[in-house]
Amino acid sequence: MRIESVDFFYLSMPQVTTEADGSQDALLVRIAAGGLVGYGECEAAPLPSIAALVCPLSHGSCQPVQDSVLGQNINNPSDIRRISQLVAYQSMDLLQAVHTFSGIEMALWDLLGKSKDVPVWKLLGYQESFAKTPYFSVLFGDDPAITFQRAKEARQKGFQAAKFGWGPIGLGSASEDREQFQAAREGLGNDGLLLVDTGQIFGEDVEKASQRIGAMEEVNVLWFEEPFHAHALQEYGELAKRSGKIKLAGGEGAHHPSMAKHLIDFGKVGYVQIDCGRIGGIGPAKLVADHAVTKGVTYVNHTFTSHLALSASLQPYAGLKAHEICEYPGQPKSLALDITKSHLALDQNRQIKAPEAPGLGMEINLEALNSYLVDVSIEVNGQNLYKTPEF
Amino acid sequence: MRIESVDFFYLSMPQVTTEADGSQDALLVRIAAGGLVGYGECEAAPLPSIAALVCPLSHGSCQPVQDSVLGQNINNPSDIRRISQLVAYQSMDLLQAVHTFSGIEMALWDLLGKSKDVPVWKLLGYQESFAKTPYFSVLFGDDPAITFQRAKEARQKGFQAAKFGWGPIGLGSASEDREQFQAAREGLGNDGLLLVDTGQIFGEDVEKASQRIGAMEEVNVLWFEEPFHAHALQEYGELAKRSGKIKLAGGEGAHHPSMAKHLIDFGKVGYVQIDCGRIGGIGPAKLVADHAVTKGVTYVNHTFTSHLALSASLQPYAGLKAHEICEYPGQPKSLALDITKSHLALDQNRQIKAPEAPGLGMEINLEALNSYLVDVSIEVNGQNLYKTPEF
Repeated sequence: MRIESVDFFYLSMPQVTTEADGSQDALLVRIAAGGLVGYGECEAAPLPSIAALVCPLSHGSCQPVQDSVLGQNINNPSDIRRISQLVAYQSMDLLQAVHTFSGIEMALWDLLGKSKDVPVWKLLGYQESFAKTPYFSVLFGDDPAITFQRAKEARQKGFQAAKFGWGPIGLGSASEDREQFQAAREGLGNDGLLLVDTGQIFGEDVEKASQRIGAMEEVNVLWFEEPFHAHALQEYGELAKRSGKIKLAGGEGAHHPSMAKHLIDFGKVGYVQIDCGRIGGIGPAKLVADHAVTKGVTYVNHTFTSHLALSASLQPYAGLKAHEICEYPGQPKSLALDITKSHLALDQNRQIKAPEAPGLGMEINLEALNSYLVDVSIEVNGQNLYKTPEF
Repeated sequence: MRIESVDFFYLSMPQVTTEADGSQDALLVRIAAGGLVGYGECEAAPLPSIAALVCPLSHGSCQPVQDSVLGQNINNPSDIRRISQLVAYQSMDLLQAVHTFSGIEMALWDLLGKSKDVPVWKLLGYQESFAKTPYFSVLFGDDPAITFQRAKEARQKGFQAAKFGWGPIGLGSASEDREQFQAAREGLGNDGLLLVDTGQIFGEDVEKASQRIGAMEEVNVLWFEEPFHAHALQEYGELAKRSGKIKLAGGEGAHHPSMAKHLIDFGKVGYVQIDCGRIGGIGPAKLVADHAVTKGVTYVNHTFTSHLALSASLQPYAGLKAHEICEYPGQPKSLALDITKSHLALDQNRQIKAPEAPGLGMEINLEALNSYLVDVSIEVNGQNLYKTPEF
């Protein structure tokens, strides 16, 4: 099969705000080859990712992503790796390229799975797709009473685990943060898994981050996620020495498998969290999962958007039975739910798993998407380089 | 002073090819505040960097770069650091943001220097701008005879050092590469400094890269640059153990100061090469220079474009006398030379240094740029987000 077209669809809620909710827009990718189509989704800013797809050539190491994809043969997983390496080499100096390519790579796996009539996780070498225990992902409330309510809601919805993130944590004192952690634990009950995500708020300040460890230990927090920025390997490693039984978690900012491997090897995280929409797709994420297994670190997906992205993010560790926790978008905007007709709903054990259906196993809800479609036009020297395509 | 405007000008040669020459286009940045203007330059793909400046908000951690810059106060170096941190935090999930901001950050230093009537290197804390020995930077020829000619040309032009890069190196056998290294040495003479840049061609293949070490030792190569991709810390470290007296060099792909520090600490490079147009500007580059000094590693600029970018790239290590080598664009396209009226020409000792004039000390040649100006228009849902501004 030859790749005939790469279409990018920028979708958005009518109103987008500065809240820390990544489900307010999306960049859906459609690939056509051999009479089939595959779908994927890029995480992060749609417009810059579109620009990286279609931009004029700057020089040999700064080519638009589409120049390494269109016309390529795609018959086997090795073709996906080959195209991936071609993009990395020919777009070496185009930083956004890997975010752009991540959605394309997912779509190529989806298409390849459909052509071979197998789910993607089988193409990755797994024999079985094991059930994962999803955690409910929400933001800390502005005061502990709201956090308490959200924790209760997570239990009422049947979740055994909940992650609280961002909000006021790190902005005030350590004792204010303690009250938040305690409210989350009270709402969740003593038997629920409690996870904390501080969204890089401590920058590179190991001392300030370590002042939160005691309060986390008191309420039995499972992991302390993203204390620092994505490149702070030494600070992660330093905090890990002081974090006692609280394991560090991170990796969502990784845009190369080596970045995530370094967070394991040098940053000493206990949980490595990968967003397939940023790291270059499913193949690079699988490399991280393999590395996590050899290092005794637990792999977890990072997903805050659609169930298409959720299916993609489960594939790299679908066959790893012991790596059981998964992120599950708790309160996504309607856009994120409307992207697919099918959804990965909780089963009777309150678990989900990567679908058995071919490819990523998700049906796109094209009719529903028209109302979210953003009309984009990019012209350079009088020539149209991008216009929102038809579904 | 308040930042009133941020203008991006996409400039390009009429023809852009896939040769490994980064001077074929440019993204010039103009900042206005307090009745003054400052100029900077972003390295890498102009269109995606423009998109990252003006894109619609995706969520709180994925904001367009301009939202963290416009309206900010700029009176002291600490303001530049503050704005830099704001961009990093508010555009955390927008990968291209740091390339976009790099040119803005340079322009802020230029403007601040002009407002205080001092060169940027003084604002960075240096007392003196020391002379640097530029190396002539060219590509390996398709056969050794061309490489030999280019090496002779470097000496005829008065350069004491020459770097040969890319071309056929790594694509054929190690013995073919040996012939290239020997041709470069013969053309350069025994007293010239010979540098080799392999442009990431060995990916993560330490074995293949190490097969080139012997031939480099035979002709006394000073450094072996970019054997691997920008995130291959462990591979750099492994090769460094086997490279004998040949020092490794790398860092141009660093888009965060921690990335460059890790290349020193884990990758064991002997030379760290920073592009101020990618790493976030002059301030982050200065952090790397400080780290290099403490670790006994030599700092070198990475510059392949204009003399505005060259002045910016010299500032972070202008005051480091012992860090004497600098990259000097050897055969840039006319665009790169036409961006400035003034140029950093070689003095009677065949050296250059960061200017004594205020700011970056370079005068922009606005009249000459009209013929290179690329007309760009970006529309989203009927609203124009970017249109090429007037000079």
